[in-house]
Amino acid sequence: MIKIAIDCMGGDAGLPVTVPASVSFIKKYCDTSVFLVGSDDLIKSCLDKIHNVPFNRIEIIHSEESIGMNDSVDVALRKKKKSSMHLSAHSVKNKLADACISAGNTGAWMAISKYVLKTLEGIDRPAIAASIPNQTGKSTTILDLGANVDCSPENLLQFAMMGTALIKSIDGVINPSIGLLNVGSELIKGNSLTKSTFDLLSSSDLNFYGNVEGNDIFNGVVDIVVCDGFVGNIVLKSIEGLAKMFSVTMQEEFKKNLLSLFASIMAKPVLNNLKRRMDNRRYNGASLLGLKGVVFKSHGSADIVSFHYALRRTREAVLNGLINNISININR
Amino acid sequence: MIKIAIDCMGGDAGLPVTVPASVSFIKKYCDTSVFLVGSDDLIKSCLDKIHNVPFNRIEIIHSEESIGMNDSVDVALRKKKKSSMHLSAHSVKNKLADACISAGNTGAWMAISKYVLKTLEGIDRPAIAASIPNQTGKSTTILDLGANVDCSPENLLQFAMMGTALIKSIDGVINPSIGLLNVGSELIKGNSLTKSTFDLLSSSDLNFYGNVEGNDIFNGVVDIVVCDGFVGNIVLKSIEGLAKMFSVTMQEEFKKNLLSLFASIMAKPVLNNLKRRMDNRRYNGASLLGLKGVVFKSHGSADIVSFHYALRRTREAVLNGLINNISININR
Repeated sequence: MIKIAIDCMGGDAGLPVTVPASVSFIKKYCDTSVFLVGSDDLIKSCLDKIHNVPFNRIEIIHSEESIGMNDSVDVALRKKKKSSMHLSAHSVKNKLADACISAGNTGAWMAISKYVLKTLEGIDRPAIAASIPNQTGKSTTILDLGANVDCSPENLLQFAMMGTALIKSIDGVINPSIGLLNVGSELIKGNSLTKSTFDLLSSSDLNFYGNVEGNDIFNGVVDIVVCDGFVGNIVLKSIEGLAKMFSVTMQEEFKKNLLSLFASIMAKPVLNNLKRRMDNRRYNGASLLGLKGVVFKSHGSADIVSFHYALRRTREAVLNGLINNISININR
Repeated sequence: MIKIAIDCMGGDAGLPVTVPASVSFIKKYCDTSVFLVGSDDLIKSCLDKIHNVPFNRIEIIHSEESIGMNDSVDVALRKKKKSSMHLSAHSVKNKLADACISAGNTGAWMAISKYVLKTLEGIDRPAIAASIPNQTGKSTTILDLGANVDCSPENLLQFAMMGTALIKSIDGVINPSIGLLNVGSELIKGNSLTKSTFDLLSSSDLNFYGNVEGNDIFNGVVDIVVCDGFVGNIVLKSIEGLAKMFSVTMQEEFKKNLLSLFASIMAKPVLNNLKRRMDNRRYNGASLLGLKGVVFKSHGSADIVSFHYALRRTREAVLNGLINNISININR
């Protein structure tokens, strides 16, 4: 039985998303059970509204406080030690749960899980990895997405090793390829960080493809794209911004007048297919890699479907021994 | 009369795009004339295919060689001194033209124009600036987009000054706002470069808004986004990659079967409006800022419409005294 501790208080919507998603998740996977971490009363009132809840695979861990999106890392870490985030991470540390997940404040979640669980031996800095749908119908995994804004070449090498372990564990790719995010594909391209990292990656025994450019994230030329957290975070938010603009503009145009409204009805099956193919909800669930425990982060704006997918990824990581795979990759 | 030197040999399509676009441009603007720089024979044969060419405002500058997309900067700079790029830049240096433009190899074009024209007093490094349509229906200008992969805070301050002069000159915005591209909006966020730059920008007399995140490029919260060329280039290519994936996926879905094809016909006016609003061709024309002359760069994949727009931006920059505005901004 796999047990996942779920911070029910995190995310833009909070309990109305996390609780129903958790229930639908354990209904789908009979080998899983969950700790629902958060306000006891609120969780129970959410569960009351759901039919056929498998109560035998749910335990509630009551927490008196929760961490807000605007709480500083310092407040989250030191002032709110009874928060749902703290208790979720502790349940993994105490081996009561196999993994934990939150949709809350990313900085706080990284700081708390790092403080509680500690970093794996051989890892200098944990990293955040997420997958983005690409043109091949599969996905490209990028790391780091913001845990480390100033990185050394050694950090980036470790990110590549951890990314390899992640993709092996979650997507079952045997020897995933790695690209170094850069301003050109030629060997001599880049800033001082990428030039040194190129040499390190080339002489490693990882499946290093070479430099890749921003558009290669979507071409799907490599399984994993490695960059420092400053670049990764900005790229992720930029593409989220463009995707949102595209979606808003499309909706505006289709709602403009009666004729366009009629066109949208005609085009609905096509637009639904398009939405499904571009849907990044299927890839929700960023992994906080390098910790002594499986820790996942859902997008804050996740809906029930999206949070459900993040739970599936978390389960896959546990099932396929993510932490063990990282340790083997790092210490060989 | 404004005179623009046009490297006709550059770009993915070359002369079949640059020559017709140049002709349509001078037809639209009676105050402009052009040097068409490139192979004399090839330019003439292109002109032969166009009706009503205003030959009185066209002069051909014959060049024996041109620079390819795969030529190294070193080859472009030192081995091909008779290239159309070199001659275009020289016509500005010799005050025969007011501005020059190429759709060719960006690295080579920057190196050649910098070598021929030299940098303005007070500018340590030239930068590349381009505009991207945002959700407000206007555009956001980003720099640097790849001229400088390793930057100092002083470089970024100068980029902000040059960007301000550019937006004043081209878009007529009186006091354009500047955002520093970062991983969060809070003052303490960022890497060592952005933290120092934040202080410099805050104490400058520029209209500094503060830190902005990747998605703010599309929200239109500021007129100008400043970043180092490494980040800027990767962001630009990432969003180009996503936009391409979106367009390809949409076309595939609409061509899938008879029903979807019918839907695409019904939705055509809506899709055309959408295309027009998201169309980055209107914003083609990156500016190479900080040189002793107006130098523009068209996207390599530009079509005739797109190259025409780049010429319009070039003309605006000359008309509104871009170089003078930069000098005033830098030396005040």
